[in-house]
Amino acid sequence: MTQLSERLRSYITRVAGLVDGYIYARVHGEPEELYNAALHLIRAGGKRLRPVIVVATTEALGEEAEKALPFAAAVELVHNFTLVHDDIMDRDDFRRGVPTVHKLWGEPLAITAGDLLYAKAFEALTDARDKGVPAERVAKAVRVLAQASSIVAEGQAMDMMFEEEEYVDVEDYLKMIYKKTGALFEASAVLGGLVATSDENILSSLASYGKSLGIAFQIRDDILGIAGEESELGKPIYSDIREGKKTLPILYALSKLEGDAREKLEKVLGNRDAGREELEEAAKLIKEAGGIEYAEELARRYVEQALAALKVLPENEYREMLEELARFAVSRTR
Amino acid sequence: MTQLSERLRSYITRVAGLVDGYIYARVHGEPEELYNAALHLIRAGGKRLRPVIVVATTEALGEEAEKALPFAAAVELVHNFTLVHDDIMDRDDFRRGVPTVHKLWGEPLAITAGDLLYAKAFEALTDARDKGVPAERVAKAVRVLAQASSIVAEGQAMDMMFEEEEYVDVEDYLKMIYKKTGALFEASAVLGGLVATSDENILSSLASYGKSLGIAFQIRDDILGIAGEESELGKPIYSDIREGKKTLPILYALSKLEGDAREKLEKVLGNRDAGREELEEAAKLIKEAGGIEYAEELARRYVEQALAALKVLPENEYREMLEELARFAVSRTR
Repeated sequence: MTQLSERLRSYITRVAGLVDGYIYARVHGEPEELYNAALHLIRAGGKRLRPVIVVATTEALGEEAEKALPFAAAVELVHNFTLVHDDIMDRDDFRRGVPTVHKLWGEPLAITAGDLLYAKAFEALTDARDKGVPAERVAKAVRVLAQASSIVAEGQAMDMMFEEEEYVDVEDYLKMIYKKTGALFEASAVLGGLVATSDENILSSLASYGKSLGIAFQIRDDILGIAGEESELGKPIYSDIREGKKTLPILYALSKLEGDAREKLEKVLGNRDAGREELEEAAKLIKEAGGIEYAEELARRYVEQALAALKVLPENEYREMLEELARFAVSRTR
Repeated sequence: MTQLSERLRSYITRVAGLVDGYIYARVHGEPEELYNAALHLIRAGGKRLRPVIVVATTEALGEEAEKALPFAAAVELVHNFTLVHDDIMDRDDFRRGVPTVHKLWGEPLAITAGDLLYAKAFEALTDARDKGVPAERVAKAVRVLAQASSIVAEGQAMDMMFEEEEYVDVEDYLKMIYKKTGALFEASAVLGGLVATSDENILSSLASYGKSLGIAFQIRDDILGIAGEESELGKPIYSDIREGKKTLPILYALSKLEGDAREKLEKVLGNRDAGREELEEAAKLIKEAGGIEYAEELARRYVEQALAALKVLPENEYREMLEELARFAVSRTR
């Protein structure tokens, strides 16, 4: 994350330390193997962007970071739960530079480890009572996070169904990535707000910030899956091509390419046996068709929306860091 | 459920109707395929014992059934979520007389359908605010259900690990079934209590009722897995033997049998290719060793504990039905 300002980098480090500490203190028990499986990806790394959004939003509204930790831990736990289950469904072997949970512990324990993280997320939410967040707002937070989790499941199902469809339009694609990724960022910003306020106007602007940032973030993910650097990503690229995922750059390329080039691309999309050369060739076709530029432009527009929504917050260093985070979502290289 | 009194049978029918109506009104959306997968087992049947415990407990404490429906729906949703994931892990093809979710929709969608039910359970919990349950008690209910869900995951992991162990002692077995089954019954009784009261004395007695009933219920399940009638169960028996599950009757038989008989039993336990005749032979050995009687005796003792704990409730028809439910847990044939 070298593109970030020194200030934001050290803030992320500080919040990540607090949230990780909170999670490790909260998530332990027996059987040890289950807890090791559940914590594996959290220990392996990750950017902790969602908890940072929770905590920075709370601090921007004048409350202390400490009070936001239960909600911050909860969104990170839900995020990691989805990763564990997604890796099973996508048959991915690596994430964050380490083998995935089901590769190390087998599918049954990986399914259960994900289920445990999910439950721990809602346990963590209720800790906010002990930090002095009013019960009414804790109940609201539960509803927000549960609804987001439902939406994430819908997005995951849409994503799977797209793989089997011949044609997906951009509108459906954007709806899917809102559900699969945007919804949890949306919830993160709202949860950060709920630590400090019940003001519906503020909360709905925060929702808009998180949602737009999340969509931009996912579009960037899809770009990196085709034009990223494997060494930076810590996971193999081109898996979207191999699995026939209908990501934005791919959809755009399919709408532009004709004849031989289109045929070539279609032959590789969804071909799990495709070799490295074929995958590189396909990525080149997508780039030449303008798929990357198109996706970058769209992502930039979402970032503009996110920045506009932030105007609801008082001007302070935390709002500035939330702004920088939104811009980072579309410039990141991993 | 023909062994039940007319009164309890019609109460179960009434509550099941209310809870099912609540669930169907609450759980719908897109993609339709995901929601169909998620609701499949609920539509296929089930006894709705957990929601009945929630509602009867609330009514025993003088509150209206209507107010308890969000919590009742939540425990049924969590229960069904665990069934969907357990069937994947256990590779079971049938439940409630119909093919399991992953058999019909595939594993990836089944995992996601389970995740969706989980999220919907916590959404449903927060509906209790709209029914007038105080926010403080709703937050408490979230903690209770989330903790129970964590414990269920621990129990599921223990259960899987037992399959690989040579020797499991009865104490560990009872701990596992408390976690896997007892914890959600425990939460059901507590949630029913929370609709009406914050009284810690009442809530902890209710916990004890649900926990003891749940353990008795699971022991009965293990008995039926060896000595039940397939036609009544709606699923194949002997799967515990085939999968090498260390259930109470099996553990007892292993501790009693020696020589040839023990060797014969051990050869079939965990042998997924075992034929019908071998399975029947193994079941016979377990029965002759006294495994069924031993398990029945232990289950009866838990029922006694459940009945004693109910004394905390006022004497009325709802308490009587809760008592009958506890006795039913160990006499049921399906």
